Amino acid sequence: MIRVSILGATGYAGAELARLLCMHKEIRFMHLISRSFAGKRLSEVYPGLDESLPVLEALDADTIAADSDVAFTSLPHGASKEVIPALYAKGLKVIDLSGDFRYDDADVYAKWYGEEHSAPELLKESVYGLPELHKDAIKSAKLVGNPGCYTTCSILALAPLVKNRLIDVSTIVIDAKSGTSGAGREPSQPLHFCEVNESVKAYKVAAHRHTSEIEQELSKLNGGEIMLSFTPHLLPVNRGILATSYAKLAKKASASELIALYKSFYANEPFVKIYESGLPELKHVNGSNNIAIGLAVDERLGRVIAVSCIDNLIKGAGGQAIQNMNLMFGLDEAEGLPKAAWYL
Amino acid sequence: MIRVSILGATGYAGAELARLLCMHKEIRFMHLISRSFAGKRLSEVYPGLDESLPVLEALDADTIAADSDVAFTSLPHGASKEVIPALYAKGLKVIDLSGDFRYDDADVYAKWYGEEHSAPELLKESVYGLPELHKDAIKSAKLVGNPGCYTTCSILALAPLVKNRLIDVSTIVIDAKSGTSGAGREPSQPLHFCEVNESVKAYKVAAHRHTSEIEQELSKLNGGEIMLSFTPHLLPVNRGILATSYAKLAKKASASELIALYKSFYANEPFVKIYESGLPELKHVNGSNNIAIGLAVDERLGRVIAVSCIDNLIKGAGGQAIQNMNLMFGLDEAEGLPKAAWYL
Amino acid sequence: MIRVSILGATGYAGAELARLLCMHKEIRFMHLISRSFAGKRLSEVYPGLDESLPVLEALDADTIAADSDVAFTSLPHGASKEVIPALYAKGLKVIDLSGDFRYDDADVYAKWYGEEHSAPELLKESVYGLPELHKDAIKSAKLVGNPGCYTTCSILALAPLVKNRLIDVSTIVIDAKSGTSGAGREPSQPLHFCEVNESVKAYKVAAHRHTSEIEQELSKLNGGEIMLSFTPHLLPVNRGILATSYAKLAKKASASELIALYKSFYANEPFVKIYESGLPELKHVNGSNNIAIGLAVDERLGRVIAVSCIDNLIKGAGGQAIQNMNLMFGLDEAEGLPKAAWYL
Amino acid sequence: MIRVSILGATGYAGAELARLLCMHKEIRFMHLISRSFAGKRLSEVYPGLDESLPVLEALDADTIAADSDVAFTSLPHGASKEVIPALYAKGLKVIDLSGDFRYDDADVYAKWYGEEHSAPELLKESVYGLPELHKDAIKSAKLVGNPGCYTTCSILALAPLVKNRLIDVSTIVIDAKSGTSGAGREPSQPLHFCEVNESVKAYKVAAHRHTSEIEQELSKLNGGEIMLSFTPHLLPVNRGILATSYAKLAKKASASELIALYKSFYANEPFVKIYESGLPELKHVNGSNNIAIGLAVDERLGRVIAVSCIDNLIKGAGGQAIQNMNLMFGLDEAEGLPKAAWYL
Repeated sequence: MIRVSILGATGYAGAELARLLCMHKEIRFMHLISRSFAGKRLSEVYPGLDESLPVLEALDADTIAADSDVAFTSLPHGASKEVIPALYAKGLKVIDLSGDFRYDDADVYAKWYGEEHSAPELLKESVYGLPELHKDAIKSAKLVGNPGCYTTCSILALAPLVKNRLIDVSTIVIDAKSGTSGAGREPSQPLHFCEVNESVKAYKVAAHRHTSEIEQELSKLNGGEIMLSFTPHLLPVNRGILATSYAKLAKKASASELIALYKSFYANEPFVKIYESGLPELKHVNGSNNIAIGLAVDERLGRVIAVSCIDNLIKGAGGQAIQNMNLMFGLDEAEGLPKAAWYL
Repeated sequence: MIRVSILGATGYAGAELARLLCMHKEIRFMHLISRSFAGKRLSEVYPGLDESLPVLEALDADTIAADSDVAFTSLPHGASKEVIPALYAKGLKVIDLSGDFRYDDADVYAKWYGEEHSAPELLKESVYGLPELHKDAIKSAKLVGNPGCYTTCSILALAPLVKNRLIDVSTIVIDAKSGTSGAGREPSQPLHFCEVNESVKAYKVAAHRHTSEIEQELSKLNGGEIMLSFTPHLLPVNRGILATSYAKLAKKASASELIALYKSFYANEPFVKIYESGLPELKHVNGSNNIAIGLAVDERLGRVIAVSCIDNLIKGAGGQAIQNMNLMFGLDEAEGLPKAAWYL
Repeated sequence: MIRVSILGATGYAGAELARLLCMHKEIRFMHLISRSFAGKRLSEVYPGLDESLPVLEALDADTIAADSDVAFTSLPHGASKEVIPALYAKGLKVIDLSGDFRYDDADVYAKWYGEEHSAPELLKESVYGLPELHKDAIKSAKLVGNPGCYTTCSILALAPLVKNRLIDVSTIVIDAKSGTSGAGREPSQPLHFCEVNESVKAYKVAAHRHTSEIEQELSKLNGGEIMLSFTPHLLPVNRGILATSYAKLAKKASASELIALYKSFYANEPFVKIYESGLPELKHVNGSNNIAIGLAVDERLGRVIAVSCIDNLIKGAGGQAIQNMNLMFGLDEAEGLPKAAWYL
Repeated sequence: MIRVSILGATGYAGAELARLLCMHKEIRFMHLISRSFAGKRLSEVYPGLDESLPVLEALDADTIAADSDVAFTSLPHGASKEVIPALYAKGLKVIDLSGDFRYDDADVYAKWYGEEHSAPELLKESVYGLPELHKDAIKSAKLVGNPGCYTTCSILALAPLVKNRLIDVSTIVIDAKSGTSGAGREPSQPLHFCEVNESVKAYKVAAHRHTSEIEQELSKLNGGEIMLSFTPHLLPVNRGILATSYAKLAKKASASELIALYKSFYANEPFVKIYESGLPELKHVNGSNNIAIGLAVDERLGRVIAVSCIDNLIKGAGGQAIQNMNLMFGLDEAEGLPKAAWYL
């Protein structure tokens, strides 16, 4: 049994991670850490979760390190890099759901997050936790930077095209739409029910941090620097991200050729669904750890359009973190992870 | 392994039943029957469901009977009673999700469903599949009438009060609110997105069939005939039923006394959650097989208000059907059933 | 031209009042008061509102009184009674949208609002601003307590029955469902989008303040004290209240008899729609100043069920306030008020 | 008074047109035509609409022509071109809300609508009814092709850039998101509440008819043929379109320079709102005849992103049709049209 602790268990991502881990047969919960709710049960914050989960505790890195095999850190960006060095030093494996350990280059972090990285030496140790691209590195990693939700959905939608140099990478546009749980549990005016409901908006246009993550990973695949447009939109739904990605084809290709390429590229990936026809919708993935990808080619324009969907709280956060844990501990990559979407 | 077939696998209830059964370790799928989609895969109708499920077939009672241990019939009301006699005659266990085998009295069926019951002799054999009230009978049943969604939520909310004669049963009012999946998959003008969204309505006031089911079961508990008000409302959400039940107390009782009574009444029930304080919301149960019940007493009026919630597609349909199957086959009642709500 | 000022113009009710007044041809805006946004334009807080509205100001009672004919106070409960005496003393007509001036009896206010009323002498002057019941008094009033949203929807649904002594008033149960804008603009955890969306809950069971308002008005109609059950529920929609009201009939009556009675009772009311058949839904009233009422009789039980709907921000707040203003200034009661619902 | 008839009054666009016309002081309703509901009142189909509107009638072109000054045809694509020639021949002014009279070139119509145009000679007479681009032509038009909803939102977002040759027109990508009322009133499986709710999807990728309309109008502004990517998405909201448009800048320009250009370009347009900062959301326009446009420049990429919003049923259909009527009859362009958004 893998002994598991979660730091930041009461945010939406942390609580979803706990819910998913309840279905995992190879783990045992050790500590659930929450600054705000220490002393309460997670089921008091999220009625409907298992009442037998351990009582929420304040953070004590020594205790966690003493009796856990792995810690998931689901803390606000910036907070992770303060607490992880201590855990890492004690030999614990760490899977970080924040943006703090996703970067190869501390300067890129500093530029997009607006502050210096306080543990740049650990950044060198951390592995970008996207199993479909970095499976071997994840297997031997001690510290994994779990990818962002938008980035998971965007990178996997474009990776086969970029890797195979099928598109003019200067023309990439990613128009992404996310459910509101992606913005977290903290109430605020723009996230008040009546402000979100029956509306839609773009936000952080040309400025969203996930842009840099997408660019980092696609650039590595491409072998040359890629810069691209990424525009997030807020949807009046709880869960799910749909990304519509556009690029000019570098040479003529039909949709069926591209579909075959994608199927081959992801042939061994248990959570990637390439559509032979049609396009994915949020309800095709929500509740599962899957990413679904459909492809269309606009022959008039020589442009490919990839539509990809994930559940932002599962493949975009807690589910992918478990997938990474499974790999780090030599388990079946899919252990304990939901394969079927809820649909309703 | 229990060999399972589903008749009517492509309706919302049937598909949810299939999704849930995918998580059940003691079953094997034999036949998935669909008149409209025979030859296709269920995952073509519900992308996101497991692609390895058997191909949908047209109905052939002999084949089903030959190689299945249990058939779930998730057919429209009226259709079940035409097909079940043949299955039953061949020795198959049957769990019917329609209203056709829920009644003790064929006359009550005829009155509320507007047609004679074509298999009244089987009505005598069938057991009302509400495990919290009829567990022993279900264990030995060959034919189970799986309760309605509204009725499950309503009966369990009132059973301890009625059984213990704590309320004036002539004053019962049940005001119930349901997500739209309860109306099924068939498109129609009143279920068009723009008609349901941002609206709410009452329907079938003083005329909904589930009234008769609630009255039948509460009357048995009470030992005398109960007639009550039941008013369903349509909500702009996919899943979940919330019932607010009102009755005058026959004698003074505090909320905490009633809560203690409910906890005792349901002490051995794995899926009943009695709230010690606060009241349940849809998000506390959706995704799980739980029913959550909260209680308030209006001391000014001597009236008790019980608020109960279920996921209409799980505890109100497919999940309860699996709970019944577990009991009929000697398994742990909770085997394969989701205990935690999604919350988000 | 009536010179109008609004105190609390940036709350949902205040902003909706401003939006509606923009369509009123007999008024001129003088001052829009906002503590939080003084110096900004209302259209900066609510993009989409008219950009030519006056700049928001901090409160100065002397200035308002000097150049306004009427002040609408759309302030939090408790704040109104602190500011209104000064306005009233200067001869201004005041229409208060809070709960502070709705009561005949300061003790009832103190009991349900948890604090003493600081201006009980003004409570004697104030008129309960429900035009369908108190039109003459409103016409000559200087201070109007604009009714609550739930109360408007509930009182008008039951008034004809209570006034004509057709029901056993000890059996009244009002089960009400409201859109989330009724909870105001202030963000909080329970009003966060992901908490409200795809859920429904009951709240303040047996304890909501509007109970006392409904009881006050129905008791006056009845000529004897009425106490009743009122249960509010929160819906995942922006606008609208639907109230389902139940009572035992004191003597036998058919739905068509009751419908005729209601039509007669409200014969001269421009905003009351009595359904000859069918029942109202939120989308039948949202966007309008109407209340729509449908009636059913459960003959098995001798119980009447009245279903009523209003737009909580219009007939339940700003629209009714304008209706009161129209009456107080001798205009056509319906001047400037929307008669058609949006439907979509 | 302009004597007005509506053909197709019971679709969502037709009914919204009728609702809006109820607020127009210079018109009188003559005939409301509905094939399906002849003999009923529009308020029976849309409870909440004015009960005094004329009874719905079957189509009789002679009667309509005899006593109307203008006919609005809100019929399915293809049906308009069959009925309009008769009306036009009798001297009636016609405003067509379908796609049948929006094209300069019958071949383009045939290519995108999949059938020959049966009245190509009238296509030469018809004017494209986008007042912000064709005001003078509309004023003297006898037949107006009212623009599509997506097209209105897209063309106006890009017109100043295209007209001023500020972008590389081969790089245009329009990612558009629409509320479900845009799909009309007819129920179908993909528009069933539970299918749309809590989901989002792209549809008709690289194949939506509105692409050709956008290309026609932008090509005229540009003086050379433009082909572009247009991708529609279905949102779980009733109303509103948000389009996110991308293009490479032909030469360097800041957001503030572009905003100034847009303000100048639309200086005399009563319904165009250019944001000086921030970006529009659906709730900023729904309920009004406005289009709101915000602009961002991604300096890293030299790409401009324009975000535009309209209410698809008002500026995208009925409201724009009224704006055209006002122009055709010499009224104030804004007469009777809602200027403020509902926000809630």
